[in-house]
Amino acid sequence: MPAGPDERLRALEDAGAIRELIARYGPLADAGDSVGVAALWTRDGEYDVGGFHVARGRAEIAALIEGEVHRSLMAQGCAHVLSAPAITLAGDAAVAVNHSVLLRKVDDGFEAWRVSANRWELARTSEGWRVAKRLNRPLDGGPEARALFKS
Amino acid sequence: MPAGPDERLRALEDAGAIRELIARYGPLADAGDSVGVAALWTRDGEYDVGGFHVARGRAEIAALIEGEVHRSLMAQGCAHVLSAPAITLAGDAAVAVNHSVLLRKVDDGFEAWRVSANRWELARTSEGWRVAKRLNRPLDGGPEARALFKS
Amino acid sequence: MPAGPDERLRALEDAGAIRELIARYGPLADAGDSVGVAALWTRDGEYDVGGFHVARGRAEIAALIEGEVHRSLMAQGCAHVLSAPAITLAGDAAVAVNHSVLLRKVDDGFEAWRVSANRWELARTSEGWRVAKRLNRPLDGGPEARALFKS
Repeated sequence: MPAGPDERLRALEDAGAIRELIARYGPLADAGDSVGVAALWTRDGEYDVGGFHVARGRAEIAALIEGEVHRSLMAQGCAHVLSAPAITLAGDAAVAVNHSVLLRKVDDGFEAWRVSANRWELARTSEGWRVAKRLNRPLDGGPEARALFKS
Repeated sequence: MPAGPDERLRALEDAGAIRELIARYGPLADAGDSVGVAALWTRDGEYDVGGFHVARGRAEIAALIEGEVHRSLMAQGCAHVLSAPAITLAGDAAVAVNHSVLLRKVDDGFEAWRVSANRWELARTSEGWRVAKRLNRPLDGGPEARALFKS
Repeated sequence: MPAGPDERLRALEDAGAIRELIARYGPLADAGDSVGVAALWTRDGEYDVGGFHVARGRAEIAALIEGEVHRSLMAQGCAHVLSAPAITLAGDAAVAVNHSVLLRKVDDGFEAWRVSANRWELARTSEGWRVAKRLNRPLDGGPEARALFKS
């Protein structure tokens, strides 16, 4: 049965809300807004960062932004640039994949310090779409990053 | 009162038109199309560039693209790459934030010469959505760029 | 005559499907998924790569991903990062322009090895929107890349 106008609107709104959610990560991270970053996730959401750390729940995710590594990057000058995601909707859940490029200031330019594959698992909640799990892995030639980009 | 179908369609169209407007900046700038770039702004729109220059109105914005700095960048090889914006709609106005990365050709690669935070103030006009004001600031560790990314 | 709700929905869906199609290229390429990459194109679609090679049809496009150059890039660590496209719809056809940035791993960071202008010609098919032709040219200061970005 083909989708009716309301379902079609809903699908467009869902994709738009997810695009928006992911687009907010970089600016919030670069502003050091730990509460804003954490609020992109569900209350028990997970951020599996590069294979070396898994933050579970909003307090731990906020702690990443408040931590020494992130603060030092911000002092040096940094940009968390995310590419437009490819999104697969499945009712109240969705999966998105994109790239993240972490640039940091050096001399009179910026260097691309980390470039990673990202897989986002998203959930429709009473607050709207939120990140249930984000995994990223550096695109360093190893199999882990490639696995995130395989459907 | 929940939004009706027409308002929901309108909100999706507004966000789409703004995404489109912002996505056109980089290609037009890299093509040296000064008239095309200027037409993205309202007639009296402003482009506050990196804190060192404010161009007011389409003629001054076009002059940035026709100027020596931009022409010299184009001759060297450059790319004005903008990330997908996070957009907040408010009726006939909107605010969007994103990153811009200015790459220029060097030896056998490209360097990220300037990486900036951008805040776009947009207005619905009789010509469609246009940029009323764009501010950008280099993400060099200072407070100005971070301020643009704070809501 | 102003567009009715169904036409407006359709236009939003078309733009969304094209954005999605283009957003899938980078992750599929970085995963080495040659069949997935080729399926983004129409059966007789073309990919004119940087002015040095034209792949015609899905088998030739898949061969690019399976070829020595791409495999060697993947082993080194690479990311095909595409910016959000500006899309012009025209019924069952569309044109989109955006940037592509090919980053590769070096020492403890990544270098932007190739940065290109892209022009995508898209077609509505029985399988959905597909790429009929993609042209890209390095933004090296020459006229070819700029020509792709001129409407």
